[in-house]
Amino acid sequence: MKRHLLEAGDLDRVDATLVLDTAAQIEAALTGREVKKLPTLRGRTVVNLFYEDSTRTRISFELAAKRLSADVINFSAKGSSVSKGESLKDTALTLEAMGSDAIVIRHGASGAPHQLASWVRGSVVNAGDGTHEHPTQALLDAYTIRRRLGRLEGVRVAIVGDVLHSRVARSNVVLLHTLGAEVTLIAPPTLLPVGIGSWPAEVSYDLDAVLPKVDVVMMLRVQAERMTASFFPSAREYSRRYGLDARRMAVLGDEAIVMHPGPMNRGMEIAADVADSVRSTIVEQVGNGVSVRMAVLYLLLGGAPS
Amino acid sequence: MKRHLLEAGDLDRVDATLVLDTAAQIEAALTGREVKKLPTLRGRTVVNLFYEDSTRTRISFELAAKRLSADVINFSAKGSSVSKGESLKDTALTLEAMGSDAIVIRHGASGAPHQLASWVRGSVVNAGDGTHEHPTQALLDAYTIRRRLGRLEGVRVAIVGDVLHSRVARSNVVLLHTLGAEVTLIAPPTLLPVGIGSWPAEVSYDLDAVLPKVDVVMMLRVQAERMTASFFPSAREYSRRYGLDARRMAVLGDEAIVMHPGPMNRGMEIAADVADSVRSTIVEQVGNGVSVRMAVLYLLLGGAPS
Amino acid sequence: MKRHLLEAGDLDRVDATLVLDTAAQIEAALTGREVKKLPTLRGRTVVNLFYEDSTRTRISFELAAKRLSADVINFSAKGSSVSKGESLKDTALTLEAMGSDAIVIRHGASGAPHQLASWVRGSVVNAGDGTHEHPTQALLDAYTIRRRLGRLEGVRVAIVGDVLHSRVARSNVVLLHTLGAEVTLIAPPTLLPVGIGSWPAEVSYDLDAVLPKVDVVMMLRVQAERMTASFFPSAREYSRRYGLDARRMAVLGDEAIVMHPGPMNRGMEIAADVADSVRSTIVEQVGNGVSVRMAVLYLLLGGAPS
Repeated sequence: MKRHLLEAGDLDRVDATLVLDTAAQIEAALTGREVKKLPTLRGRTVVNLFYEDSTRTRISFELAAKRLSADVINFSAKGSSVSKGESLKDTALTLEAMGSDAIVIRHGASGAPHQLASWVRGSVVNAGDGTHEHPTQALLDAYTIRRRLGRLEGVRVAIVGDVLHSRVARSNVVLLHTLGAEVTLIAPPTLLPVGIGSWPAEVSYDLDAVLPKVDVVMMLRVQAERMTASFFPSAREYSRRYGLDARRMAVLGDEAIVMHPGPMNRGMEIAADVADSVRSTIVEQVGNGVSVRMAVLYLLLGGAPS
Repeated sequence: MKRHLLEAGDLDRVDATLVLDTAAQIEAALTGREVKKLPTLRGRTVVNLFYEDSTRTRISFELAAKRLSADVINFSAKGSSVSKGESLKDTALTLEAMGSDAIVIRHGASGAPHQLASWVRGSVVNAGDGTHEHPTQALLDAYTIRRRLGRLEGVRVAIVGDVLHSRVARSNVVLLHTLGAEVTLIAPPTLLPVGIGSWPAEVSYDLDAVLPKVDVVMMLRVQAERMTASFFPSAREYSRRYGLDARRMAVLGDEAIVMHPGPMNRGMEIAADVADSVRSTIVEQVGNGVSVRMAVLYLLLGGAPS
Repeated sequence: MKRHLLEAGDLDRVDATLVLDTAAQIEAALTGREVKKLPTLRGRTVVNLFYEDSTRTRISFELAAKRLSADVINFSAKGSSVSKGESLKDTALTLEAMGSDAIVIRHGASGAPHQLASWVRGSVVNAGDGTHEHPTQALLDAYTIRRRLGRLEGVRVAIVGDVLHSRVARSNVVLLHTLGAEVTLIAPPTLLPVGIGSWPAEVSYDLDAVLPKVDVVMMLRVQAERMTASFFPSAREYSRRYGLDARRMAVLGDEAIVMHPGPMNRGMEIAADVADSVRSTIVEQVGNGVSVRMAVLYLLLGGAPS
């Protein structure tokens, strides 16, 4: 393992598998325990440095760190000295000087975690940067697929929606490819990035053609303001073309699962009955997120498992 | 005990007494201890899910959980994925999936805690919902009365002020009745709810007539904007008719006590010298709140005391 | 030690030295430890009561308390019952009743911590009040100087910038004088307070004349809006007259150090290359802040060291 987790590409197949295996071991170790905590990171400090609101990601990391017995500092950059014009660099040096062992950063600017990592000796974990990456989301998605389907090698995954702005899509394409899965991206042309041809993934504009052939459908969150910019006449029209409803879910293979990183727009990219169906792993993904983040913090801060 | 504490009516006399007795036992156990904590809830997670600001209630629950050694997650719904349109249901399922054992919810909509309880397996504690209920406030008030007066059975309690909008009044009427006290509600007609006749309480419009006959005067917090709506020409006029000042306090019986759930409007519903008098239990109520909430979390999450 | 730390003048030479020595002992005790925590304050509650945003000071106190194993409650007065008009007194009595052992207060009004101390039995630590004092900043500065230069007695310190509005300057002048250092204040006349003549410090308007003769240059943070009010034609003009750049740093003695309480305006009161030079103690100050605040909490709450 490297010292930081900045993007999915930081993990080769061995490292990525180590994270997933460690998450599984942690889960097993806690199952049936009276006290659902491990003492591994006692006396260590994890800082959640969030420049964007994301309560669910912040809480997931906070719980992961606390279940490893670390102390957690939440630092919402709103209303902080950031508003007095303090630079990211000075904030980083300040946190480091205070003895933080890991900084978990969410930032609106792509690349901010990489900059941070160049300034501090402790570990940096990217919890989402701009439209760039969100590597722990990809790890929890891979963990969820492996748990449900028993494998990742050769699994066929459709990622559907606003790929252009999605750090979730970007990290998943990289990590799933590393782990041997086959990804197809499905989006209107206006919501695909330039240079998509070089990504290790197929591309399609036709959701209905792809659905019968995949093991996993991963729906991306849609943001209304971006849909307008993509020349869709309306949200309903988007939903008709790229939303997952019961009719579409019916053409999936028997074992196929439906994923979503949350928070969902029920009725927009995903119908409520699909979200709540037995194929849906959406709630599991959230729980797996805590396990995977425990594994990441454990491996970055606590040394490799013996 | 039921799995949740959603309203005062969830507690029959046996359960309500169990909470008060448990609070007293916890207080006794911590008195004289060097370390003011119990290990009971180590490894358990309590989430404070607050859709309305209420620092004092949030801190009271946070301290209660921490003194039982639980991990606490504070989730202010402002600036959260709620603002991205996430439903209460998805928030609930997310918190449950992350392993929360109890959710303490404060919400502006009456009934929100009941909805929440229908979606999660863990315990839900209502920390105030709209104008509906605030059951732990009623418990701490009952605990305070019992401690000061030695009993609840037959105790005569006047609850004075904006009963219409007060969840504190509602929960207190129910719980005090359950515990055998006799409640009189005193308010201008415009600040009494429709259907007040069916409540297990007397009603009066005349504070001065009632005061000499009660053991407890519980003043409700007044909200200026609501007073205008209730046809009072001015705050001063309200205060003259329904405020508790030194002159009125003088007609109380020797043992009678003065209560207020806080935060107070000194000089409005209660005069400063009354708030600070020896009859006042206002500061005690705050301290008792932590003990009572420890008892509630202990009973809901930790099993019945042996 | 007194029960509170409200201003630098609360500490005589013996007490101030005790704080610095205790900080050094704590640092030594934690060095080389696997678990960077002491159990001293287990079961104690420290409340951070912040009426002004100051993430770095709040985090520093939060870490200090957590590393002593205390429970920490963060209370940002924004969006609290304060906004419902609750007085500081009622807030104080509420926190005390909930069992807080120490209140760390940051407030926009000079003197607020003193008021608070008159209402509570627990300890009060001033974390910055208006333009008045910030005593733990002065302690960490003194600690930093002693560590770098080996002594405080006779050390010559220049404090440069907006002395008028600076609680950092005020606390430092008092504490450094107590500890035997010699302070020179350097500022434009409009940024010096009335009555400066009675402070135990020299005054100068000429930075270049003073620099060659000092062991320590402490730059104060400049606030743009105040500079206009002080009749400077522009920020650049201020910077030219009172900013510390590489040219000015070059005239310092061989051992002299450069300090800043942060957050810095790089390029305004301090040039970026000066801030990052080997003379700069700015990052050390931050780290020392945690140690010194641990020492203060330890001495106020945990009894004197044996």
